[in-house]
This record gives sequence, C-alpha cells and structure tokens, in this order.
Amino acid sequence: MRAAVMYGAGDVRVEDRPDPKIQQPADAIVRVVLSCVCGSDLWPYASMPATGTGRPMGHEFLGVVEETGSGVATLRAGDLVVTPFTYCDNTCDFCRKGLQSSCRHGGRYGLDGVDGGQGEAVRVPVADGTLVKLPVEETSPLLPSLLTLSDVLCTGHHGAVTAGVSRGDRVMVIGDGAVGLSAVIAARRLGAEQIILMGRHTDRTDLGRDFGATDVVAERGEEGAAKVRELTGGDGADRVIEAVGTLQSLQTALGAVIDGGTISRLGVPQYEQGPLGFDLIMRNITLTGGAAPARAYIEELMPDVLNGTIDPGRVFDRTVGLADVPDAYRAMAERRALKVLIRP
Amino acid sequence: MRAAVMYGAGDVRVEDRPDPKIQQPADAIVRVVLSCVCGSDLWPYASMPATGTGRPMGHEFLGVVEETGSGVATLRAGDLVVTPFTYCDNTCDFCRKGLQSSCRHGGRYGLDGVDGGQGEAVRVPVADGTLVKLPVEETSPLLPSLLTLSDVLCTGHHGAVTAGVSRGDRVMVIGDGAVGLSAVIAARRLGAEQIILMGRHTDRTDLGRDFGATDVVAERGEEGAAKVRELTGGDGADRVIEAVGTLQSLQTALGAVIDGGTISRLGVPQYEQGPLGFDLIMRNITLTGGAAPARAYIEELMPDVLNGTIDPGRVFDRTVGLADVPDAYRAMAERRALKVLIRP
Repeated sequence: MRAAVMYGAGDVRVEDRPDPKIQQPADAIVRVVLSCVCGSDLWPYASMPATGTGRPMGHEFLGVVEETGSGVATLRAGDLVVTPFTYCDNTCDFCRKGLQSSCRHGGRYGLDGVDGGQGEAVRVPVADGTLVKLPVEETSPLLPSLLTLSDVLCTGHHGAVTAGVSRGDRVMVIGDGAVGLSAVIAARRLGAEQIILMGRHTDRTDLGRDFGATDVVAERGEEGAAKVRELTGGDGADRVIEAVGTLQSLQTALGAVIDGGTISRLGVPQYEQGPLGFDLIMRNITLTGGAAPARAYIEELMPDVLNGTIDPGRVFDRTVGLADVPDAYRAMAERRALKVLIRP
Repeated sequence: MRAAVMYGAGDVRVEDRPDPKIQQPADAIVRVVLSCVCGSDLWPYASMPATGTGRPMGHEFLGVVEETGSGVATLRAGDLVVTPFTYCDNTCDFCRKGLQSSCRHGGRYGLDGVDGGQGEAVRVPVADGTLVKLPVEETSPLLPSLLTLSDVLCTGHHGAVTAGVSRGDRVMVIGDGAVGLSAVIAARRLGAEQIILMGRHTDRTDLGRDFGATDVVAERGEEGAAKVRELTGGDGADRVIEAVGTLQSLQTALGAVIDGGTISRLGVPQYEQGPLGFDLIMRNITLTGGAAPARAYIEELMPDVLNGTIDPGRVFDRTVGLADVPDAYRAMAERRALKVLIRP
C-alpha cells in the first residue's frame, strides 16, 4: 500500500509500505476512506531530527473494515468506522473512567508496528474497543464532519469539559487552529455565554464566529490578555482553553483568566517548564486538560454531527490525494491551509 | 500594646506598637486571646532580607471584640470571634463564589497598616464579613481546635476539596506539618478510603495516623513516589495534596499521582517555574489548589470541632506567651515544635 512517512523536519514522503495484516485476534484492517493532517503533526514537521527509518504519520481516519481478527466481536467487513486518535480496549479501568488516552492496552498510531492513518489502510489493535460504527454511507457528505470525531472535535470538547465550561460562563479560546475552532463549538454547545476567540487569521476567526465566538481578539501576549480582561468586565475569563501549546500562550492564558478560574491546555506543550509560582497559588488558578480521551466522547458528539446541529467539518479547507500529502504539510505549516483532508 | 515584628531572617522581636484604633466604620478591634505561628511564617524567617521598619507577624487568631466601628452591624463588644487568615467583606462577587481569598476589599494581616495576629490586639477591617462568632466561652478547652479554623484546618480542607476528594478515593498527603495533618483530617472527613501521609517525623506521622492516615511513607522523591504507587496497586493516588511547597515535593506528587488524577498545592511555592510539559499533558494531570478561602469553610467545619468529631487542635504541641514568640519561631524552624500556640 501507499502511506505517508516522515523522515525528518520538512521531509514527508509517500511510499510503498507492506499491506497491513491481522497480527492479533483483536485486530481489524481498515481501508482508509478519509484521513487528514493534524496541527500536532506540524511540530515534528518543524523540528524532527532526520531518521533513516522514518515514521508513519497520521492518527485521524475513518474507513471501511476489510478484515477482522478471530477475537473481534462487534465489527465485520464492510462496516464504516471512525477511530479515536489513540487506540484503546475501552474496557480497562482507565477506559471505564473515561480516560481512554491512558488505556492499559492502548497506544498511538504510527508507533510500535502500528500503521499511521495517512495511508491506504491501517491495522487497528483492540478494534472492538477502538472503532465506532458510523450510521452513514461511504458517500455521505457528512464524512468530513464525522472525521473530526477522530480528534479535533473531541479534543476541543475535552478542553471545554475539563475547563468546566457550563451555562453562562465567559470562555476564552486561545488559538484559531482546528482544535481552537472546535473548542468554540464545544463551549457553545455547553452553554457558554461569551466566547472570546484569540487568533489573527481573519478567515479562521470568521469561521470561529460562525461556530459561536462572540468576540475575537487579534492581539497576543499581555496586550491580548488585557483585551480579554476588558471584554469580561475587568477580571478575565472564567475558563480558558489553550489550543496552541507555546509558553507565550500559557502566559496569555494566565493573564486572561479570572481568580479561581481554570485553564485547560490542549496544545502539545512546546516547553517543559512553566510558571507555577506564587501568583497561581494566591489566585487559585487551576491548570488542567491534556491529551483527549476522544473515544469517551464520540457517541456523545456524533448525534449533533448527524443532525447538523454542528458542522465541524468546515475546518477542512483543502482536500488532497495521498500523493500530495507532502504539499498538505507544507500548506498547513505555511498557514495557507487550516486543515487538509486526505482521500487516499 | 506588645506585638511580634520580623526584621529579617531569624530576627523576630516583640516590641511596643501603637494600640489599634478604629479607622474605618467597618473596623473592629479584637483583643487577641489565642494566636499561633504558621508554617508559612518560617519562609520569611529563613530568608527575609533585613529591613529597618519590620513587618508585624501573624495571621491566625481568635479573640474578643473590644470595639466596633459605626458601620459594623453583626458584632459587638464581648463577642468571642475567630478570623480567617485573610480579611474579606464576604459580600463581593468573589466572596459569594466562595473565593474570599480574592475578595475585592480584602487583604492580609501585617500589611497596609493592618496589625498582625501575633500581638495583643488587632484592628480587623471589614469586620462583619471577616469575623465569625464562636459559641463558647473564652475559657473553653476547645479554643486551640477552634483556632485552627483560622488557617490550617480550612487550608487542609481546601486541599481536599480542590483535589476533589470523595468517598472511596486513594489520597496522598505530602508533608507532616500542621497543614498536611489537617489535610488528613479533611480527606478522612470527605470519605477517602486510603490516606497515605508522606513525612519523616515519627511523632507527627503518629498524630497523622490518629487523624486518619492509613499508611505512612518516610521516603521522599522518586523513592517515595514508588512507595506510594506500590501502596496503591501500582498506579498512584487519585488525589494528592501537596503541603510542603518545594519543587521536590511537586515532583514527588507528579510521580505518585495516577493518570487523570489531581494535585492540589497548598504549600507556598518556593519556586517560580515547575514541570508543565508533555508528561502532564499525556497523563491528563490537573494542578489545582492555592491560598485557601478560609472564610468559606469556617461555618461548615466548626460543628465537627464543637462536637468533638475532629480534634485539629492536637497540632499544637507547645504554648508560649508573647515574650517568647522568638523562641517559638526558633523551635518551629528547628523542627523541635510542630506548631506553637501564643497566649498574649
């Protein structure tokens, strides 16, 4: 099969890889119908040291089950399914708590001999737990929106849930990437009264307004935080969803959150150390969030996608075939594309 | 009046200060019956740069109202009252949310012309909001336990509440000082199934066992964290209350908490930067806690003190008069005393 492999910063190649085969009874082979490039793929695209072996890329996909291992009970060939961005058995104690991202038998695509999603097919481990059936045809126009259940919609929702967004809250979302925009959808869905989106790409923040943002702040850093305090009556937002991952974004979040407020971090942090001193303690600021247990949210969010209440697929603004995946990375890295769909 | 003033590291003096007088209509003058030295007083005692003017010390006290300003409605001379360790109007929007530590008209004792608690008398601002009447006589043997409502008991409770301790949880408390021991009381009160106390002073950890600790771990750092993981079936504690304030303690907390767990920080952090990187995000660890809004908890906790369900006054293991306050600091700094009562 053909699949995208990253060999180092700026070096994504589409090449022949072995066709996936059932290796464990719990495996399923999925032919990929739709995949995409993630904002988190851009970090290694910017900085990964060159490697001779390469790393299969992609962790968001939906597709058709082609074959199942002898231990798979709930799926069969022909099922259209979506995967959360990490696989999980959905039965262990962590999964039962809703923390599928820490599943005892889970893992990440593209590692440990598991294929990436940016390719023609994927061997999915613990398939019964991981894959969720989609009640539509392969030709449904809803497919792009359903693909966001794989990561960005569930990740944005995780931010809103862990930040504690509830009816009437003043929410700030930092970052106008696909996760930030999905967090706007999620915050609105949970009843936020005010949703301030911080971003500087007008086409993206316009989409954010369509999704429910009530205010847009283009300034960053202390200037941006001051603007947010002004927009919230002087004190800052009750809940901040940080969907960038830089230290500057975290500092902006700290400047823009009200005393006693919560910051949920969704961006993969591009720092190891951050501010944790006297100021946070005196102000009772909570830092939460993390890698979303997407599997926990798929069934909850899917109906709103199916009935058209939300339309998260609008984050995709370009579609490529497999051969053009390197272009997709380039376009996203250069901010010429928001999020690129891949139709293998 | 006589009061304790700190002039620099290791330099606490008891000296004459002006008798407090009503300055604002909302003020009350309280004659101090019982005060004490706080673990947090030991940080400036260890490191405060020498100053010519000095800083009045003490923020935990109970006493008798001697005089009230014209605007005070709920208190009168003769009332026995306890103060939370910061004053607050208890009516502003932050107070109404239960975040009296961020009160819009609140502040800290010993600053801004307000007396410290380690003296004969204190002018208490916004007295109606701040002071809580005690339904006992000045001679009651419950007074030391009631004094813990001023800070340590409420602070320990804040740790347990913000960490989310609930029935059946596995809780770890780092630190065998008065706040850590109070957190043990609070965790037990909220129904924790297992309470692991990390500390190395046997007399204190023995008291912790009396308060409800089910396990004691004397090791620190990664060794201590490994012990906690072992005691919790391999994964770590659901809730960690960090009552020390050093970076090492925070690192121990991170090593001892389960994926998806919560760390509540109560110790005044002796660091500005701390670990906030990939590991926390992948494991969905929440960092919360802070300066306790003690005022929010006094009425809730007082009945358990009055009916003897809890006996937090056992954290006091020495009593001095005002003249001996410098000795009290020395004894606590040298770990010869756990927490020292002051009877002016």
